[in-house]
Amino acid sequence: MEFTAKAIADMLHGVVEGNPDVKVSTVAKIEEGSPGALSFLSNPKYSKYIYTTQSSVVLINNDFVLEQNVNATLIRVKDAYESFAKLLSMVSAAQERKVGIHSQSVVESSAKLGEDVYVGAMAYIGHGAKIGKNVKIYPQVYIGDNTVIGDNTVLYAGVKIYQGIAIGNSCIIHSGAVIGADGFGFAPQQDGSYQKIPQIGNVIIEDNVEVGANTTIDRATMGSTIIRKGVKLDNLIQIAHNAEIGTNTVIAAQTGVAGSTKVGENCMFGGQVGISGHITIANGVKLSAQTGVPNSIKEPNEVFIGTPAMPSRKFSRSFVVFKQLPELKRDVDEIKRLIDKG
Amino acid sequence: MEFTAKAIADMLHGVVEGNPDVKVSTVAKIEEGSPGALSFLSNPKYSKYIYTTQSSVVLINNDFVLEQNVNATLIRVKDAYESFAKLLSMVSAAQERKVGIHSQSVVESSAKLGEDVYVGAMAYIGHGAKIGKNVKIYPQVYIGDNTVIGDNTVLYAGVKIYQGIAIGNSCIIHSGAVIGADGFGFAPQQDGSYQKIPQIGNVIIEDNVEVGANTTIDRATMGSTIIRKGVKLDNLIQIAHNAEIGTNTVIAAQTGVAGSTKVGENCMFGGQVGISGHITIANGVKLSAQTGVPNSIKEPNEVFIGTPAMPSRKFSRSFVVFKQLPELKRDVDEIKRLIDKG
Amino acid sequence: MEFTAKAIADMLHGVVEGNPDVKVSTVAKIEEGSPGALSFLSNPKYSKYIYTTQSSVVLINNDFVLEQNVNATLIRVKDAYESFAKLLSMVSAAQERKVGIHSQSVVESSAKLGEDVYVGAMAYIGHGAKIGKNVKIYPQVYIGDNTVIGDNTVLYAGVKIYQGIAIGNSCIIHSGAVIGADGFGFAPQQDGSYQKIPQIGNVIIEDNVEVGANTTIDRATMGSTIIRKGVKLDNLIQIAHNAEIGTNTVIAAQTGVAGSTKVGENCMFGGQVGISGHITIANGVKLSAQTGVPNSIKEPNEVFIGTPAMPSRKFSRSFVVFKQLPELKRDVDEIKRLIDKG
Repeated sequence: MEFTAKAIADMLHGVVEGNPDVKVSTVAKIEEGSPGALSFLSNPKYSKYIYTTQSSVVLINNDFVLEQNVNATLIRVKDAYESFAKLLSMVSAAQERKVGIHSQSVVESSAKLGEDVYVGAMAYIGHGAKIGKNVKIYPQVYIGDNTVIGDNTVLYAGVKIYQGIAIGNSCIIHSGAVIGADGFGFAPQQDGSYQKIPQIGNVIIEDNVEVGANTTIDRATMGSTIIRKGVKLDNLIQIAHNAEIGTNTVIAAQTGVAGSTKVGENCMFGGQVGISGHITIANGVKLSAQTGVPNSIKEPNEVFIGTPAMPSRKFSRSFVVFKQLPELKRDVDEIKRLIDKG
Repeated sequence: MEFTAKAIADMLHGVVEGNPDVKVSTVAKIEEGSPGALSFLSNPKYSKYIYTTQSSVVLINNDFVLEQNVNATLIRVKDAYESFAKLLSMVSAAQERKVGIHSQSVVESSAKLGEDVYVGAMAYIGHGAKIGKNVKIYPQVYIGDNTVIGDNTVLYAGVKIYQGIAIGNSCIIHSGAVIGADGFGFAPQQDGSYQKIPQIGNVIIEDNVEVGANTTIDRATMGSTIIRKGVKLDNLIQIAHNAEIGTNTVIAAQTGVAGSTKVGENCMFGGQVGISGHITIANGVKLSAQTGVPNSIKEPNEVFIGTPAMPSRKFSRSFVVFKQLPELKRDVDEIKRLIDKG
Repeated sequence: MEFTAKAIADMLHGVVEGNPDVKVSTVAKIEEGSPGALSFLSNPKYSKYIYTTQSSVVLINNDFVLEQNVNATLIRVKDAYESFAKLLSMVSAAQERKVGIHSQSVVESSAKLGEDVYVGAMAYIGHGAKIGKNVKIYPQVYIGDNTVIGDNTVLYAGVKIYQGIAIGNSCIIHSGAVIGADGFGFAPQQDGSYQKIPQIGNVIIEDNVEVGANTTIDRATMGSTIIRKGVKLDNLIQIAHNAEIGTNTVIAAQTGVAGSTKVGENCMFGGQVGISGHITIANGVKLSAQTGVPNSIKEPNEVFIGTPAMPSRKFSRSFVVFKQLPELKRDVDEIKRLIDKG
């Protein structure tokens, strides 16, 4: 797609300075700009690039004061970064105009599809499934029997959702994510083998949740594994059976939450964090990358690190000494020698 | 599905107390029950809920003594938990009555299918593949050339199995699992690049193995990567080329076992454990979550934790002091000052 | 396939000792050989097996001196290991003669396919995609709109590549890998919720890259996530938005590289390593398994371990004392008691 500076200014309620007819067809960082690209300037650290950028059009804040001439056409807006993000959203929404039911998909006759649904090639929608309005189901997606998908949700290519799952409105699920596989539950037998415990619960994902590529969310043994509204899960995350992730909690890649654990609201977890089963994490808790949490955390808004997890400041103080342990040991040995002599 | 209390009692050889005609169509924890639900009472901690539960039917042990009246219809059985699990298995087996070869699947003409096989839409079965009796192949599964699948095995939607793999009877493989991708083997070249070492071995999975969602099991360089009977693998696990996992070993999510390592029988590994290549883990070893094992563990049934792994008790004693390291250092510095003065 | 010793010797420019007409149809380690198998002897540690192997044909080095009679037919070559690898490559290339466009695939009319392309059943190739010569696209692969794939690249079953991605020549991408899902970027809002930042960049994968099963490489927010030529990624790895992995760097399974981090050339990372965002790793750095790197590493070719990462030797010296911490603490307490008394 190609837009003139004027067209963009109109979309953003901005004011053009320079040639309103110059056209852009891509975006670029201001320091990496090229002719035909749109950039923005928001962070003062990058101000100098406004005078040298090769981009054809740059969004800048209303109150930015130029100190030299610029080559680019400028569009002045209240908040250049916000306007840029808004523009991208509009463009990417426009690009995603996928519609219609592909003839090489399979939709079972008892499934119900809302208005303006897109079902890509080789997608499968099971018996009794209910798909909301304006849902986009990319090629090779699998939706099991009786699963319900809310309005405006996007399932990218190859997402697998087992039977009986409930997914809310305006969710985004990325390729390879698996929702509703069996929880990991086995009863040990006398002979050392394990008997599978049937996993007959489900998964409930509320509105505005994003699930990253190849993330897995297991169904509950009984009851539900629950992802509350606004949760953002990165790639390759494991959410085990009967876990609950609180509203607006954000979790980075490769983290695992074990069974029946309840994570609070507005938490932030780094990558590769591990959280044990059957515990509770208070609201607003922050866990640094690779932290391992064996027990419940009851203090809200605390920052933890390490395995087993410690409050971040305590860990740092101990770790400083850990790095000096050979010297500390030498000191103690020297003192012992002195005392023995004395 | 809907069952009367009487029908359930008949299936479980139990005895009804109360209305035998009340119907249930779902299951619930006893403390979360609702009309139309079936619950069980096994753990004495939950005994109080028998008097207040909203569930319509509750399984209880023969020897449970009521202290008040109850609203629910009771079914008395020898072991309420076991009966409940058995009932779930029967119901879920009944629900899974998927059969037939979908017209939009592709089965190469030289593949052989056993009796009562289900092949879902958009599944692919390669040249020379052999599929046992009563196998369920969900939509979008890929089975490579000459791969063999035993009787009663279930492959959920989107499982990918490369060519020449052998999978046993009564296995369950969850969505997104990849069996038989190339082992990670490269020969360093003079110029700093790497030459791929062809991976021409295979994977052997024995009977009664469960493989979790998005878990990967690589083919051997030569010979076989082997998963022994009764092994249970959770989600997002990595089993590298030429590894062997012993009978009835259970491994939690996101654990990795590197190449050519041999894990014993009846081991239990927590989540996010890492095990180096070319080592041996004795039978019955337990590894806590996030443990990193660089060397062989020869003592059977020991519990390890930490990176590098230490016996659990030793680690705990050291970790207690780690948390006090700033104070310890202060003490030593103080002693040094005293001695210098003295 | 079946080959005579003579045919193999011809392919490898080797010299037969023994029966040139003996046939082999498989390969085996020399110590596990069986009639009909081909083995090689390269490592002197295994020399003794040449006298007892059951394999029918063995490749050995020109300069190997026999001390006894052997049963196997020998083929003498300059470098037995290299010849063996070369032979396997030739055979596996011959086996992979997949060709043609399957009638149950979907190739959009504006996509362009090079010569000798294989497109398997239920694969999808989007609008404006460009596929190079001799590319192999296995069943159930998804290639998004306007994505470009170089010559001789192999995409195994179920690979998912989003729109607008560029993949080089002679790459191998294993099943379940997801290339180009949205980077994990959200702007916090006043009410505690998060607003998605559109991810409009792409992924560039250069030539000769191998990507393991279920690995995820996210698209850039703007600009590109870049995997330089010759990089080898194992299974279940996470490469976040705007990261760059340098030429010939090798990364083991379950490692994660966070957003905007730049990894140098010729690095080697063990499994389950975690690398923070917005940092730089120098060329040739080696990271042991499970290492966590919070800050840039500027010294090339150094070896690091631990979380937070330390130079390997420093860590080892500290860890030795960590294991003795209970005794060290006892010593210090004893000294304190002595001093207090004194």
